[in-house]
Amino acid sequence: MTLAEPDLDRIDRWFRAANYLSVGQIYLLDNPLLERALEPEDIKPRLLGHWGTTPGLNLVYAHLNRLIRERDVDAIFLAGPGHGGPAAVANAWLEGTYSEVYPHISRDAEGMQRLFRQFSFPGGIPSHVAPETPGSIHEGGELGYVLSHAYGAAFDNPDLLVTAVVGDGEFETGPLAASWHANKFVDPVRDGAVLPVLHLNGYKIANPTVPARIPREELLSLLRGYGHEVLTVEGDDVRDVHRQLADAMETAHDRIRSIQAAARESGTYDWQPWPMILLVTPKGWTGPREVDGVRVEGTWRAHQVPLGATRDNDAHRAQLQEWMESYRPEELFDEQGAPRPDVLELAPRGVRRMSANPHANGGLLRRPLRLPDFRDHAVEVKEPGGSIHEPTRVFGQYLVDVVRDNPTNFRIFGPDETASNRLDPVYEVTDKAFAGEIREVDEHLARHGRVLEILSEHTCQGWAEGYLLTGRHALFSCYEAFIHIIDSMLNQHAKWLKTTRDIGWRPPVSSLNYLLTSHVWRQDHNGFSHQDPGFIDHVVNKKSSVVRVYLPPDTNTLLSTMQHCLASQHYVNVVVSGKQPGFDWLGADEADLHCARGAGIWDWASNDDGDPDVVIAAAGDVPTLEALAAVSLIREHLPELRVRFVNVVDLMKLQSESEHPHGMPDREFDGLFTTDKPVVFAYHGYPWLIHRLIYRRTGEDNFHVRGYKEEGTTTTPFDMAMMNDLDRYHLVMDVIDRVPSLGRAAAGTRQLMVDTRRRARQWTRDHGEDLPEVRDWRWTESGEPRKGWSPSVDVAVGTDTSADS
Amino acid sequence: MTLAEPDLDRIDRWFRAANYLSVGQIYLLDNPLLERALEPEDIKPRLLGHWGTTPGLNLVYAHLNRLIRERDVDAIFLAGPGHGGPAAVANAWLEGTYSEVYPHISRDAEGMQRLFRQFSFPGGIPSHVAPETPGSIHEGGELGYVLSHAYGAAFDNPDLLVTAVVGDGEFETGPLAASWHANKFVDPVRDGAVLPVLHLNGYKIANPTVPARIPREELLSLLRGYGHEVLTVEGDDVRDVHRQLADAMETAHDRIRSIQAAARESGTYDWQPWPMILLVTPKGWTGPREVDGVRVEGTWRAHQVPLGATRDNDAHRAQLQEWMESYRPEELFDEQGAPRPDVLELAPRGVRRMSANPHANGGLLRRPLRLPDFRDHAVEVKEPGGSIHEPTRVFGQYLVDVVRDNPTNFRIFGPDETASNRLDPVYEVTDKAFAGEIREVDEHLARHGRVLEILSEHTCQGWAEGYLLTGRHALFSCYEAFIHIIDSMLNQHAKWLKTTRDIGWRPPVSSLNYLLTSHVWRQDHNGFSHQDPGFIDHVVNKKSSVVRVYLPPDTNTLLSTMQHCLASQHYVNVVVSGKQPGFDWLGADEADLHCARGAGIWDWASNDDGDPDVVIAAAGDVPTLEALAAVSLIREHLPELRVRFVNVVDLMKLQSESEHPHGMPDREFDGLFTTDKPVVFAYHGYPWLIHRLIYRRTGEDNFHVRGYKEEGTTTTPFDMAMMNDLDRYHLVMDVIDRVPSLGRAAAGTRQLMVDTRRRARQWTRDHGEDLPEVRDWRWTESGEPRKGWSPSVDVAVGTDTSADS
Repeated sequence: MTLAEPDLDRIDRWFRAANYLSVGQIYLLDNPLLERALEPEDIKPRLLGHWGTTPGLNLVYAHLNRLIRERDVDAIFLAGPGHGGPAAVANAWLEGTYSEVYPHISRDAEGMQRLFRQFSFPGGIPSHVAPETPGSIHEGGELGYVLSHAYGAAFDNPDLLVTAVVGDGEFETGPLAASWHANKFVDPVRDGAVLPVLHLNGYKIANPTVPARIPREELLSLLRGYGHEVLTVEGDDVRDVHRQLADAMETAHDRIRSIQAAARESGTYDWQPWPMILLVTPKGWTGPREVDGVRVEGTWRAHQVPLGATRDNDAHRAQLQEWMESYRPEELFDEQGAPRPDVLELAPRGVRRMSANPHANGGLLRRPLRLPDFRDHAVEVKEPGGSIHEPTRVFGQYLVDVVRDNPTNFRIFGPDETASNRLDPVYEVTDKAFAGEIREVDEHLARHGRVLEILSEHTCQGWAEGYLLTGRHALFSCYEAFIHIIDSMLNQHAKWLKTTRDIGWRPPVSSLNYLLTSHVWRQDHNGFSHQDPGFIDHVVNKKSSVVRVYLPPDTNTLLSTMQHCLASQHYVNVVVSGKQPGFDWLGADEADLHCARGAGIWDWASNDDGDPDVVIAAAGDVPTLEALAAVSLIREHLPELRVRFVNVVDLMKLQSESEHPHGMPDREFDGLFTTDKPVVFAYHGYPWLIHRLIYRRTGEDNFHVRGYKEEGTTTTPFDMAMMNDLDRYHLVMDVIDRVPSLGRAAAGTRQLMVDTRRRARQWTRDHGEDLPEVRDWRWTESGEPRKGWSPSVDVAVGTDTSADS
Repeated sequence: MTLAEPDLDRIDRWFRAANYLSVGQIYLLDNPLLERALEPEDIKPRLLGHWGTTPGLNLVYAHLNRLIRERDVDAIFLAGPGHGGPAAVANAWLEGTYSEVYPHISRDAEGMQRLFRQFSFPGGIPSHVAPETPGSIHEGGELGYVLSHAYGAAFDNPDLLVTAVVGDGEFETGPLAASWHANKFVDPVRDGAVLPVLHLNGYKIANPTVPARIPREELLSLLRGYGHEVLTVEGDDVRDVHRQLADAMETAHDRIRSIQAAARESGTYDWQPWPMILLVTPKGWTGPREVDGVRVEGTWRAHQVPLGATRDNDAHRAQLQEWMESYRPEELFDEQGAPRPDVLELAPRGVRRMSANPHANGGLLRRPLRLPDFRDHAVEVKEPGGSIHEPTRVFGQYLVDVVRDNPTNFRIFGPDETASNRLDPVYEVTDKAFAGEIREVDEHLARHGRVLEILSEHTCQGWAEGYLLTGRHALFSCYEAFIHIIDSMLNQHAKWLKTTRDIGWRPPVSSLNYLLTSHVWRQDHNGFSHQDPGFIDHVVNKKSSVVRVYLPPDTNTLLSTMQHCLASQHYVNVVVSGKQPGFDWLGADEADLHCARGAGIWDWASNDDGDPDVVIAAAGDVPTLEALAAVSLIREHLPELRVRFVNVVDLMKLQSESEHPHGMPDREFDGLFTTDKPVVFAYHGYPWLIHRLIYRRTGEDNFHVRGYKEEGTTTTPFDMAMMNDLDRYHLVMDVIDRVPSLGRAAAGTRQLMVDTRRRARQWTRDHGEDLPEVRDWRWTESGEPRKGWSPSVDVAVGTDTSADS
């Protein structure tokens, strides 16, 4: 359909206004309406914006506004290119939203001056599409995530259109490349749609982009291979491009609605390509064509600030004035600086404005999850260590209720590991979503599943973030080693959460909940290739107001912890729990109390009568097992030693109150760990983290921490513990070495431990499995293994090897 | 060309032999030649292998052997799919290499039994293609890197053919998706070739793969879009597949040689697609078709161990025997268990065996870099702080010599940042490599460049690893924040280095050298989006035998450090240095001595006469600047205070000797920092790392560390320092708070610091730049700013904003 001239004019006015406001933000301190010739003092002392990508973003935004108005589309806008802030802010100001949330940035000359000045200025706003920007759920600081965020936003929002502008620099990143295939997980019946706009402006910081310099047919072939019907818009004549783009937008929207209508009518669908737009316009379009005799527009030189010396160089400053005047501001803004009515004609109304769409401020839409009481799924624990369960499988049964009771706002994300992680009970009530071909051999794969699995941790993380930031709830389950893949994404999300805590108009969103399993102590069969418990360390470096780390030692504590996390808001919760069968230590009520406290003495494993000779502490399931086994060895061999056993579920409890909101007061900490007795601490991850957390506690020098110290090979789980000196025998040796009062009497016990370790190692090498007394060990008060009962068949042997991809 | 029957038989014998040996490794403890019916005790107690991917790897290996023999090809083999160990090991044993490097695994029945037993068995070898496997440079523990490793190996090896099998699970990962475009950086004149083989066996752990379930035309379109001519081989009839694959291999090789020959004749080339093979065969091909009445071959159930209960279940065990006998082992191995001559007919000779190719054992080929003396590039330093330079730009001039003098074995890798990082002097002697279209506007972009830039940190890292592991030298330059993107890759590489230290037949390779710039203290204009100095923390978690971290405080120390790192072997060296203009503190000889020591007292900044009241220490360029400014403030306001200034370049010096090979003896540490005086330590990264490193030092409780504490916004560099309490004024306050002897006398100074900070903050908000006294500060002995000299014009202002993409 040909664009009528008045429509074209309307779009172009918006485009010019947004471009004018973008340039103003990058350059001006004052004189926003160019009421006088620009003076040096009108110019910012540091020019920190990025012009190159901006006109393309403004162009797409303007055309989306037209589509929204013409067809009453519910749409949001994600700007993939880095430093797209000026464009998003300009559009939000034009739409009035900016002044609504920031009244001092009014829609007049004074507000415009403030708008300009604050951009990339101390105390102002960043150059990215930061959380401070109304309408943003995608900051774009580190590139690669715009499509996965967009798809995350579209899931379960059947009426939503999410437009994602992909920069051609971002196009080269791995996470972005993988996320094109996210379209294979969109259900046109129940999900909304994503409209990718690949903006080929040709250049990065200092280079052309790869997609701009391969044969066009190759690029089109690639995009079609990603499952898209490509609508190309190309040119450098503004009016011509407006006509092409308006047409492409309508065609794309028609196509999306037709796919959705057909699927919704029949209730199902077959895979078919989705539309996308390939937009080819010059980098820094409508900006200075040449500067100092060198071509700028359409080259990498337009990436940041095309005119670099506008404060000192009169010619540059004049060229800036000329550039801004080329947008004919007098046609766009009235004398008071307000956008003229015929500019505002293009703006949608109310929440149809993309800058005011509540989907881009998910806290507004968030409803709490309906959560079952974890006690309904708790396992019965008659005595500590009297039974065994696979913690994550039991949690999977809890998840059945969560999925069933929250049919449109809870999703499980993970890289092909949901079943391996024993969460497959959820397949009683849902499936894995897949829009590609489904065959008879496939299990639990269906058109409308609520579990999303792709072998890209980046895509899973991006989906989860997009889903959360639009007001829903998510669980990300992953092997511990592989979660490092998204370290940098977590970093950005945690910073987003921290920043939005101080933005009053953004209510909290749901927490990002990680369940990490197949953890470092059960990666023995992989050899020494990629095990790493360091994600915890990475997370703990983030601001304490947004991060939480939990290490539930058994099934019921896992349930209680997860219920707490799923109900929480605005945190990153990291929960580490094994999936292998493990002993149950605490009943439901004890587990609940223990988790609420976060750390506590386990009386049944202690014989200190309030005055221990030594404290044995543990955080993590395998460390808890080894520490309790050490306690029972001490009971047997050194019965006179008064031992206190402390378990830590909530790692942040160890910090002081001043460091973390969960931190224990010193009084409480000292009450648990004493101030003067040796503490032998068995920890899941790198041991130094514990020292860091207990920094400046009175008794810190008494702590002796065992954990993962980067030792491993192909061996059994217990041998892995031995290689890292976390095993029960070594813990007993550690106790003996730290309680001098035991004297010579303990020397024999110590030697026995040394000998047993040697024997255990040899046995493992000879038999390929652990020493029988390790496999058959079970907690008893007397320290004697109970007769006629061996958990080892279930625990240590068997053919389940699904601990890796 | 049709495959002659005898050739087909030869390939098939190898294929069967490799499959037999693979199954044996997964299942058998004993009875390797099936001389008697399998008994339970012949079976491993834990079955930990992955059969699914194995036959495909064996198939490709066999056909490559034929190609190598027929055409004398110099080739190596990279197995992308995870857990491909059994295949690689089987082939290496057949070729005799395995027994050469591990004589106890002889090529006879006894050796075969040991070969079988050791696989995924305690004390044995891992299930990945681990460094223990001859011929491997790609372990495949965490998926996604096979293509980037392959291209890294091919660069500057014009005669080498690198075959990379890409699993269709791995295909879904981001890093793999991005790395297809690595072919745009291959120079057919000077580089070797990569032959990707996408093995579509259809399934991951529990799901079909995406590429297997999109329309075939879409997949082909995608692969063509990646720049490949696709040769499809598809079937489940073994002999038919042999014919197709032999044909495809020949065609691919012809095509590669023809591209290379044309380019080498003319000296240049235009972009054209490279061949690749799409191999479609069933998962777990030739394995059990059904188990317990359920289809296994050709489904996800073949991913790991198709027969799970072979030790206990007689039917399973009988089926295993039947399966192994289906390969007709009597035709393959003689009575002594040695491969029969007509199997060995297919094996290439000597170093043409892929398992013995020295390119896959890079330490054999490594030649030390020819390095200039850094003094030839050192800047003249007449007095501390008397001049300013951009450290990385001067290092760029040093790199000119390195590039020129090492024209075939040194490369620079980075994500579009070489110029932004001020290393562009190298463009005097080389260019950025690019095989796509080059236009007039492009600078330093050429067909034969030695700088490789793609906006994928994953691809850069994979390239660097592949280049290093094949015996060459690499520098990876990256913004500090973005290096977290490759955290998990670093993890795997560091583990590879640690493991290979104990493998006698693998000589050391060159170190992986990171130059991290645009660091956390100069990301102020980004707002609070993705800054993070935590890569250091991640690296320090790796084994101390392989990791080194350097924080050179100025230009000459950067030069000295980099020279040291470039000459080193088998480490991961992380060097963090700003690119912005900064003061020179040390002359060349002083810098060399300081770097050799790793940490030391700067006498010219100290007035302690061997007996300080307080130690002010710094690690990192910005912390050093702030700490020295704090010293000068103290000189001015508290002249009676005896201050010692310590600078730390080599972070690992802080650890004890027992923790790190670089660690200082306690005596030396105490000599520097004292055991009883307060130490105010200004550090580049997260402060707790310093506490961790000095753990158990006598004076550890006296350390007060300032560093990055996750605070930031859009502001000036100095304001960033203030937000994190790392600034000079706060350091003076820290000193005053920790030296009680100063008494009331210091209260006025303290208040002055508080007031100055407040004034600095307000000035920044008002003027968009730092307080003049901050910008104009310069080290003098008296503490008085020198007259008539202001570095601020160069240091703090200007339009260089290239600190981000």
